[in-house]
Amino acid sequence: MPKNNKERLLIFALGGLGEIGKNMYVIQYADDIVVVDAGLKFPEEEMLGIDLVIPDVSYLVENKEKVRAIILTHGHEDHIGGLSYVLKEINVPVYGTKLTLGLVESKLKEANILSESKLILVNNESEIQLGALKVSFFKVNHSIPDAVGVVIDTPEGVVVHTGDFKFDLTPVNNQMADIHKMAEIGKKGVLALLSDSTNAEREGHTGSERSVGESISEVFRKAKQRIIVATFASNIHRIQQVVDASIAYDRKITIVGRSMVNVVNIGIELGYLHVPEGMIVDVDEINKLPADRVVILSTGSQGEPMSALTRMARSTHRKLDIMPGDTVIISATPIPGNEKYVARTVDQLFRIGANVIYGGSISGVHVSGHGSQEELKLMLNFMRPKFFIPIHGEYRMLRLHSDLAESIGIPRENIFLLDNGDTIEISNGKARYGSKIPVGNVLIDGLGVGDVGNIVLRDRKLLSQDGILVVVVTLSKQNATILSGPDIISRGFVYVRESEELLEEANRLVTVTLQKLMIENVNEWSSLKNSVRDVLGRFLYEQTRRRPMILPIIMEV
Amino acid sequence: MPKNNKERLLIFALGGLGEIGKNMYVIQYADDIVVVDAGLKFPEEEMLGIDLVIPDVSYLVENKEKVRAIILTHGHEDHIGGLSYVLKEINVPVYGTKLTLGLVESKLKEANILSESKLILVNNESEIQLGALKVSFFKVNHSIPDAVGVVIDTPEGVVVHTGDFKFDLTPVNNQMADIHKMAEIGKKGVLALLSDSTNAEREGHTGSERSVGESISEVFRKAKQRIIVATFASNIHRIQQVVDASIAYDRKITIVGRSMVNVVNIGIELGYLHVPEGMIVDVDEINKLPADRVVILSTGSQGEPMSALTRMARSTHRKLDIMPGDTVIISATPIPGNEKYVARTVDQLFRIGANVIYGGSISGVHVSGHGSQEELKLMLNFMRPKFFIPIHGEYRMLRLHSDLAESIGIPRENIFLLDNGDTIEISNGKARYGSKIPVGNVLIDGLGVGDVGNIVLRDRKLLSQDGILVVVVTLSKQNATILSGPDIISRGFVYVRESEELLEEANRLVTVTLQKLMIENVNEWSSLKNSVRDVLGRFLYEQTRRRPMILPIIMEV
Repeated sequence: MPKNNKERLLIFALGGLGEIGKNMYVIQYADDIVVVDAGLKFPEEEMLGIDLVIPDVSYLVENKEKVRAIILTHGHEDHIGGLSYVLKEINVPVYGTKLTLGLVESKLKEANILSESKLILVNNESEIQLGALKVSFFKVNHSIPDAVGVVIDTPEGVVVHTGDFKFDLTPVNNQMADIHKMAEIGKKGVLALLSDSTNAEREGHTGSERSVGESISEVFRKAKQRIIVATFASNIHRIQQVVDASIAYDRKITIVGRSMVNVVNIGIELGYLHVPEGMIVDVDEINKLPADRVVILSTGSQGEPMSALTRMARSTHRKLDIMPGDTVIISATPIPGNEKYVARTVDQLFRIGANVIYGGSISGVHVSGHGSQEELKLMLNFMRPKFFIPIHGEYRMLRLHSDLAESIGIPRENIFLLDNGDTIEISNGKARYGSKIPVGNVLIDGLGVGDVGNIVLRDRKLLSQDGILVVVVTLSKQNATILSGPDIISRGFVYVRESEELLEEANRLVTVTLQKLMIENVNEWSSLKNSVRDVLGRFLYEQTRRRPMILPIIMEV
Repeated sequence: MPKNNKERLLIFALGGLGEIGKNMYVIQYADDIVVVDAGLKFPEEEMLGIDLVIPDVSYLVENKEKVRAIILTHGHEDHIGGLSYVLKEINVPVYGTKLTLGLVESKLKEANILSESKLILVNNESEIQLGALKVSFFKVNHSIPDAVGVVIDTPEGVVVHTGDFKFDLTPVNNQMADIHKMAEIGKKGVLALLSDSTNAEREGHTGSERSVGESISEVFRKAKQRIIVATFASNIHRIQQVVDASIAYDRKITIVGRSMVNVVNIGIELGYLHVPEGMIVDVDEINKLPADRVVILSTGSQGEPMSALTRMARSTHRKLDIMPGDTVIISATPIPGNEKYVARTVDQLFRIGANVIYGGSISGVHVSGHGSQEELKLMLNFMRPKFFIPIHGEYRMLRLHSDLAESIGIPRENIFLLDNGDTIEISNGKARYGSKIPVGNVLIDGLGVGDVGNIVLRDRKLLSQDGILVVVVTLSKQNATILSGPDIISRGFVYVRESEELLEEANRLVTVTLQKLMIENVNEWSSLKNSVRDVLGRFLYEQTRRRPMILPIIMEV
């Protein structure tokens, strides 16, 4: 008997494919939808003035009554950062592990929606029945504790979503990935695997977090003055290792940077970070201690202009100064696009006379949280899925991950290299491409969610390149004369005092143009405006090879 | 007898220290000035709308009659790109090797100043007497042929400027660096060494250009369809190796990208590039050949949005398409800041189905043109200078190069870590810091040279973030009423159609504010304008958390 058309498994992404960030994957069987993650993305360079980017969730809003849950794999921004926006549209239950929910709570509180949200705690042994879908978990290693992979048991078979993972054989918290459970899942048979592609370009194995602890400890051993460590706030393992080194070398720690303070507090409160009483002191206290008893744990590992480290490097931090001879550890690698900011911060620190340990992978003070090629192949081998969908990565990473899957024996036709919105329909063990789901970037600018679109961005781009020229003129149409103006006001175009002649000539040109048109009885505003724009645009381009935005304002009395 | 105060050696940089780009170093003895290089720099991210940056040469203009020459070390943009601007200010003789002058000529021709320029050809055996200074040269290896180091014999002793260099023991053109000459120069005694710091962060040795040829040849051997190679136009050695591989595998070449066509022509004409007759064909010809006989040599190795490779990747090139199965070699590494552009191009190429060879150092299809730490130490050992000034690099590179110099035995107090404009005065064998020379960035925007300064850039930045709001209103002050307006026009702020309410409310607020002020008899334009700006700014920030530029235009009738 043929099944109802609805009784098929749908797999697609609302975000996370062809990009790093805004991860959001959807598994739907008939009328049951489970969403994995709700992340944000930081804006691309050309998204001028934009603060954040989240996925367009129209599909979920339209199918509100079918969405059973959002499952969170871990507490990084690219997996949970969109949640507060999404929950305002569809208030569905959210499942996550302890640390993940701890971080989510603090976000939802800030967004004023914590009280109406439904957060449900799970662990790697939980099983949740969500309509026809049964969800369970397995522990993975990542650069934040409490990260899990997700197993979704569907009537068509088992779908596995790895979350972000690496295989760390000597993890800092001794919490190995559930490799036995993974082996068991794979042995029972996996229909489809969705696996993290971030490091698909890297050969070999990613280093163990513990090796970073050893490098950091070595730096501590040699440091004679203050030690400043900058890292990602969410990397609690890394922070633990800084704490351990501080204990070993009898130093106290002060924490700077809002997110660092926040995560350390949550980490301690929930038992993920173990810090002896009295070890963390506030900034005023630390300034009273001798330099060789001080550690400053800080945000700013990406050289972010407003971060604590950048302010210290520029000597503009309100309370903390870096002195010649201090040691600064930048325990991170630059996220693509941030290389220049990090380099600038390193330069500023060197100028102050600090000893800077940077360039994570060479100096040993950083390892990635994502598995390299051998680990990706290990995961593929554990799961031995029938169908493979590389996720979480830019196109070339997904592509290289596909090649890895093929290399371990998955036939090319069973590998689906998708874009956001591309759907895979699986029915009776057969997979095929389904119809596309609408997807997109929702831009957050200040309080605005989605009110900045392509036109606004295009204007910002134009304004940023050559500025703007406003031409104001008051006309009397009755006697075809200019009553006042033209006045030309420019911003971001030329330095006015050095370009008086140019602007006077522009002024004269507008006057002549308007007078001529009025004599010819051309009176429609739009014609007058267009003529001013054309004439002035041409003149300015000839004279300067620039194309400022020209805004003619013609008043009539 | 004490020497005249003027009889001292001055060394400083007008550009190139604390930055990569706009190299310009000055050696002055009494009334004789020799300038080494006149480069440009590409704009930093925050220099919105700027095309190029050149050094401020006020010092040279003020001392015009003392400037004996500009000596060019090689033909890269960061060494010759500022020349056409500088020569317009001071038309002094320019000395360079054959290829360097070939490239300079084409630049000066474009700037319409070739005929009045004085270009003088030199080679590694030339000696030039310039007042009290005698200038000679030694060959170095670099990623462009005909690169030289400069020896300046002064009454105080010998100053050596390495130019950009590496030690390539198996160079493609068999032109080894003049290591014997370098040894001899060092043996005779060097007072001060200025040496390239670009790769001071890299351990070991930089690979030989010849190894790239082998990797490229291996890719050619495997390729079954078209091969597209993108590299820097100026890397003639690289281009020669692509030509050689094309000969070996019986492929014809077409050249795309304006600068690539230009440099290849100059390279062939001057005898630096050896291409068999009929090997290079035009685009229309190449499209008639079978795919396995085709090589496309292209610009765009930095993912530049308008380059030939990027256009091919986006399928918007007028004549050339990349097909699934074609092989693309990106024979370069991204310059810091370009990583994202390159990644985007690689992604687009993969999407088309091309086989992309990228990530230069891992895939072997690129090596740097600058020496790594062991080579820098070798240069230091050849020269054994009394004083050392690391040049050509961001601060951390100069700093690490200083450490290298110290490691080979140069005392710390003889190493000068300078900024642009810092001067070293050497007299009677003693060096000390002299007074600072004015330096700076001159921004080129279109035809404007230096007419864009901090205020214009700050406005562009503001405009790019949140756009602009122009408020136009006509008042009758006599009867304290608003005659027309307020009209609010916005660009780059919000999508107007979705923000009608906000703009209406803003409008009402301006009306109320102005009426109130006029009733209170506040009539000065500046007060009215400031009030509108303040009230509106506050309101919009409250409502949107954005701060658009607000431009009140108040007309009076």
